[in-house]
Amino acid sequence: MRIARFSIDGTVGFGVVEGEPTDDGGLQLDIIKGHPFAEFERSGHRVPLDKVRLLPPVLPSKVVAIGRNYAEHARELGNEVPEVPVAFFKPSTSVIGSGDEIRYPSISEDVHHEAELAVVIGRLCRDVPRERAHEVILGYTCANDLTARDVQQREKQWARAKGFDNSCPLGPWIETELDPKDLAIMCTVNGEQRQLGRTSEMVRSVEDLIVHITESMTLLPQDVILTGTPAGVGPVHVGDEVAVSIEGIGTLTNKVVRRD
Amino acid sequence: MRIARFSIDGTVGFGVVEGEPTDDGGLQLDIIKGHPFAEFERSGHRVPLDKVRLLPPVLPSKVVAIGRNYAEHARELGNEVPEVPVAFFKPSTSVIGSGDEIRYPSISEDVHHEAELAVVIGRLCRDVPRERAHEVILGYTCANDLTARDVQQREKQWARAKGFDNSCPLGPWIETELDPKDLAIMCTVNGEQRQLGRTSEMVRSVEDLIVHITESMTLLPQDVILTGTPAGVGPVHVGDEVAVSIEGIGTLTNKVVRRD
Repeated sequence: MRIARFSIDGTVGFGVVEGEPTDDGGLQLDIIKGHPFAEFERSGHRVPLDKVRLLPPVLPSKVVAIGRNYAEHARELGNEVPEVPVAFFKPSTSVIGSGDEIRYPSISEDVHHEAELAVVIGRLCRDVPRERAHEVILGYTCANDLTARDVQQREKQWARAKGFDNSCPLGPWIETELDPKDLAIMCTVNGEQRQLGRTSEMVRSVEDLIVHITESMTLLPQDVILTGTPAGVGPVHVGDEVAVSIEGIGTLTNKVVRRD
Repeated sequence: MRIARFSIDGTVGFGVVEGEPTDDGGLQLDIIKGHPFAEFERSGHRVPLDKVRLLPPVLPSKVVAIGRNYAEHARELGNEVPEVPVAFFKPSTSVIGSGDEIRYPSISEDVHHEAELAVVIGRLCRDVPRERAHEVILGYTCANDLTARDVQQREKQWARAKGFDNSCPLGPWIETELDPKDLAIMCTVNGEQRQLGRTSEMVRSVEDLIVHITESMTLLPQDVILTGTPAGVGPVHVGDEVAVSIEGIGTLTNKVVRRD
C-alpha cells in the first residue's frame, strides 16, 4: 500500500495511492479516515493525485542518517568503510516533500545529491533485537540526503553541511509492502543518470541499522532512517531538477532554486 | 522572570517562579494563563514548587550544540580550538528535566558530564544578523551535554555518543532577564566541584553562534542552543548526583541510575 500525505484547498490529509502513472495522470488518492500511524480506514472518497500538493509523507521528530553504507561510494570520496556505522542527524526543519523546491544554501558552493532508501518507523521503540526489527517499520520512501560537500570538508561535525533547510527531500509516499533487500536505486539530474546502485550493496542491512541506532536512542513513530547512498554523488546547480527513484516505491522530484 | 514547566496531578502547565530557595522550600509558582512563547499572563494562583514535578522547560524540535567553545576544555581533551565552531545535534528524545533520572546508556562505560549555558529560542528565525540576535532569545537555562566519551572516540560523528536517551538534561527553568556575557558556570558531582568557569571564556559569543547556526538552518520557538563546556569534564557513575549551576539561573540536578 502507498500512503501519501497531501494538502488540498488548505486541508491536510493522508490518502492511499491507487492506479499506475499514465501520461494523463492516472493516479488517484483514496482519502484516509484516521491516521496511518494508528487506526485508519479508506473513505472511498477519491481525488486525482495531480490535483493535490504532495507533502513530506511523515513529520519526523528526527532523521537518523547513516554515512558510508555502500562500499563503492565510501571509496569514491577517499574513505574506508567504517568499522562502526557513521550515524548523524538531519533535523525536522530540513524535511521537504516531492515537488517542493530545494533552495540553494548560502553557506555552500558545492551541494551534492545523495539518493537513499528511507525507512519510516511506525512505533516507539528502543533496544530493538534484530529478529524484531521488521515490526517497527511502517514502510519505505525515497530520500535525497543533500550535502554541502565544501562545508562537510571544512567542519568536523556535519550539522550544518547536512542539516541546512531543504536538505532532506522525502517522498513521494510511503510504500508499506516492500522487501528492501535488493532494489534498484537511482538518481538523475535533468533526466541524466548520475547514481545507480542496488540496496543489496549496503554494508549494513536495514535491520542492523535499527539495532545500532536503538541501542542508543528511542525512535518515535514518523522518525526516519536514511540508509546511505550508492556511488555517483555529484553537484546540483540552480535550475536543476533532481530525481531519486527506487524500485517498488516511485520517484521523488525536486527543483533547485536560488535562495531568496 | 523565571519560567518553569511542570506537572501536578497529571496536568502540565507553565508557571512563573517567585521567591528565593530556603531550607523549608520557599519557592512558589504563579501559574501562567496562555503560553510563554506567545501571549500570556500570570493567574495569581500559586502552588509551592516542591509540590510539583519540574519538566524540561521547553520541548525543543532540535538542540544545536557547539563543541570546543572554551579553549581550556578543548586543550584538556587534546584538541585545538576549531577555526569554525563544531556544531552537532542532540535529538528531542535526549531531553529530560531537573530531577529526572539519567539512565546510564548500555553502549558506554565512560559517560562524562559537560555543564553548559543553554539558549532558549523564542521565535522562528533564519539568517539572523548579529545585531538582531538578542531578539530571537526567550531566555537561558542550564544544560548537561552528557557525552559517552568512549563512543565519541570510536565514532566519527557524534549522534550516538551525544544523542542517547537522557543525554540532555535541561532546567530547572528559563531565566528571561539575564546578560549571558560573564556568568559563573559550575558542575558538581555528589556536591564536589568538578567544573568551574565563566561564560566570558567562550571563544564565540551567544550572538555569534546564533548567526553561525541560522545561516544554515531555521530555528523554531523552543529550539535550544548549547554553548560549549568549560574545562574539568569527567566521568559520572551509577548512584552519582550531578548538578549544573549557572549564576543568575539556578541549579539543574539529576541522579545517574542503572538502565532498566
